[in-house]
Amino acid sequence: MITDALLADGRCVDITVQDGRIADITPHAGRLGETHLAGALLLPGLVEGHVHLDKTLMGLPWRPNAPAPSVRGRIEYERTHRGSLGPVQPRARALMDRMIAAGTVAVRTHTDIDDAYGLANFHAVLEVVQEYRAKLPIQIVAFPQSGITSRPGVADLLDAALSEGADLVGGLDPVTIDGDQKGHLDIVFRLAAKHGKGIDIHLHDRDPGGNAQLRDIAARSLAAGMQGHVTVSHAFSLGTDDADDFAATADALAKGGVAILTSAPGPVTMPPVKPLRARGVTIYGGNDNIRDLWSPYGNGDMLERAWMIAQKQGFRSDEDLALAYEVCSTEGARMLGLPTHGIAVGAPASFVALPAESIAEAIAERPRARTVWLAGIKQ
Amino acid sequence: MITDALLADGRCVDITVQDGRIADITPHAGRLGETHLAGALLLPGLVEGHVHLDKTLMGLPWRPNAPAPSVRGRIEYERTHRGSLGPVQPRARALMDRMIAAGTVAVRTHTDIDDAYGLANFHAVLEVVQEYRAKLPIQIVAFPQSGITSRPGVADLLDAALSEGADLVGGLDPVTIDGDQKGHLDIVFRLAAKHGKGIDIHLHDRDPGGNAQLRDIAARSLAAGMQGHVTVSHAFSLGTDDADDFAATADALAKGGVAILTSAPGPVTMPPVKPLRARGVTIYGGNDNIRDLWSPYGNGDMLERAWMIAQKQGFRSDEDLALAYEVCSTEGARMLGLPTHGIAVGAPASFVALPAESIAEAIAERPRARTVWLAGIKQ
Repeated sequence: MITDALLADGRCVDITVQDGRIADITPHAGRLGETHLAGALLLPGLVEGHVHLDKTLMGLPWRPNAPAPSVRGRIEYERTHRGSLGPVQPRARALMDRMIAAGTVAVRTHTDIDDAYGLANFHAVLEVVQEYRAKLPIQIVAFPQSGITSRPGVADLLDAALSEGADLVGGLDPVTIDGDQKGHLDIVFRLAAKHGKGIDIHLHDRDPGGNAQLRDIAARSLAAGMQGHVTVSHAFSLGTDDADDFAATADALAKGGVAILTSAPGPVTMPPVKPLRARGVTIYGGNDNIRDLWSPYGNGDMLERAWMIAQKQGFRSDEDLALAYEVCSTEGARMLGLPTHGIAVGAPASFVALPAESIAEAIAERPRARTVWLAGIKQ
Repeated sequence: MITDALLADGRCVDITVQDGRIADITPHAGRLGETHLAGALLLPGLVEGHVHLDKTLMGLPWRPNAPAPSVRGRIEYERTHRGSLGPVQPRARALMDRMIAAGTVAVRTHTDIDDAYGLANFHAVLEVVQEYRAKLPIQIVAFPQSGITSRPGVADLLDAALSEGADLVGGLDPVTIDGDQKGHLDIVFRLAAKHGKGIDIHLHDRDPGGNAQLRDIAARSLAAGMQGHVTVSHAFSLGTDDADDFAATADALAKGGVAILTSAPGPVTMPPVKPLRARGVTIYGGNDNIRDLWSPYGNGDMLERAWMIAQKQGFRSDEDLALAYEVCSTEGARMLGLPTHGIAVGAPASFVALPAESIAEAIAERPRARTVWLAGIKQ
């Protein structure tokens, strides 16, 4: 039993956990449970909607970032240098441990699959994921980081990864990387249909080209009956100033049941949270690159990511800050197929306690002292 | 003596402190000093270039933010509600203590002066500043938060504050708030000349109107021989896409010796750091609003602000991240008239130690466990 927990709605409660789930929530009656929270805020666990476990340098000494000016340049730099990083497993474990300590209770990771390394990263990540799956749900996206149609053999490698346990098929900038929107998306949707699995496509292109691709993806999702199982990550082009283009694209995404994943990157436009939700589009959050060959930033903390999303969106009210938290918890959980996420009877006892009076204060302060439970087990 | 300190340039040193200053820096020779840092990174103290000590709610229970859509709306909201906040002093002290704990060693604070509250906030902040000046340098800007020419009596109140110890005269959106660019700036520059003090003007206007005002301020600074003593805070308009307008404005600022202060706010454009420096314009950092009636965000940590500036500027290399740190330390110190800032013999022994291998890692991680010295005294 967890006692004297402050919930986001202001209630002060005791929580009974049984078989990894919340069995009962009762008003706090002065009892002392196994864990007495003394009024700390108890929040639904954070959900990491987009991370690259195989890329991270976590646990290694600091390595200066060698920034390339374009996505293509970063891909090439990584292809050249990732061999020098040592095995994936210890780095992936170091990051998983930090993510869990920060309150993350479910994860979707992409893992590079390409013509140079084949399934090596996928196999390494799968090994780590299988270790951690006893603690928390993790999904793996088979991610063609170097392209599909422009890289011989990658389509077959993706096919193999899906057979071997990848949970979703990925894609990447069909126009900018492969120069073949139709060919790229044909393969992604074909593999998803063949294996009965979801889709999560990286799309970095800016408007208006990016939004045209989003509408194509949305139409394909609708045609394939894949509503609710397709995500486009990043989708910077939705940050367009063109209101008509935005509305048409958002409506297409809503109709096609395509969700948007954002990391609210610093220097570029991001998909606008409230306008997308107003048109029926799901948007959820992820950290993306965490201290790797792409970026020196990141620490695996999805509460910090909620703060970045909130800041960039100009959120100030408690209600808006709570929405930023939802984007980084409940909304991600729903997209990861975990519908009972939250502090409610019957939901998994996977949550995080921290010193704050409200979700808004939690985001503003991001206290690093956190107590985390995964399926009822205190970490 | 402080032993086994890692400096940003990679040297591992012992530091001798005498009379509040750095008396000697020698290669670490295995000694154990009064404080043994065990290889922790020792960095020049952070400098808070723009804060509002009188506005903060720090130390009070969480208060939801009631966001208004415009600067004018926020001014009105604050005028209506600040009476309910209780005395300034305990809130200002709570924030000062947090800023120092985060490694800040010098501060410029604005303090509201207007027709509704007169010099009340100024007097309260002056009291707190006088308490803390034994520890660290603090400057007060007499800040006309509600305008000058549109608010009878405010010019005289600013005059009085400058006589009573304000270090700089402030200004605020001459066009948007007072509707009188000439009248507003005439008074600001007249008061600065009368008292022989510097200027720090808030300017929120976007381009192109903002840049026209910047050029006017730069021309006035040049004419008055005030180069190096004038700052424009925020200056969002410098984030313009118009390269010619940017170049003309930056060149005028350089010629007029006008520095730019930025807090890298989330949802709007910011002055570009490297392009401004390339044209000879000083840019330094500040937190601005910290948990007050304007914003729910902020915790007084200038290392976090350096990270926000770096993220928004797309900085990735170690060199660029070190520049972001400089913007939030050395550059601010220079503008605050503290030229010997840094880890060097003769400089004040005001610095911060934290667990990191490099400035880049310090910014990426922002470790919260910090050891801070102010003029040789460990805090």
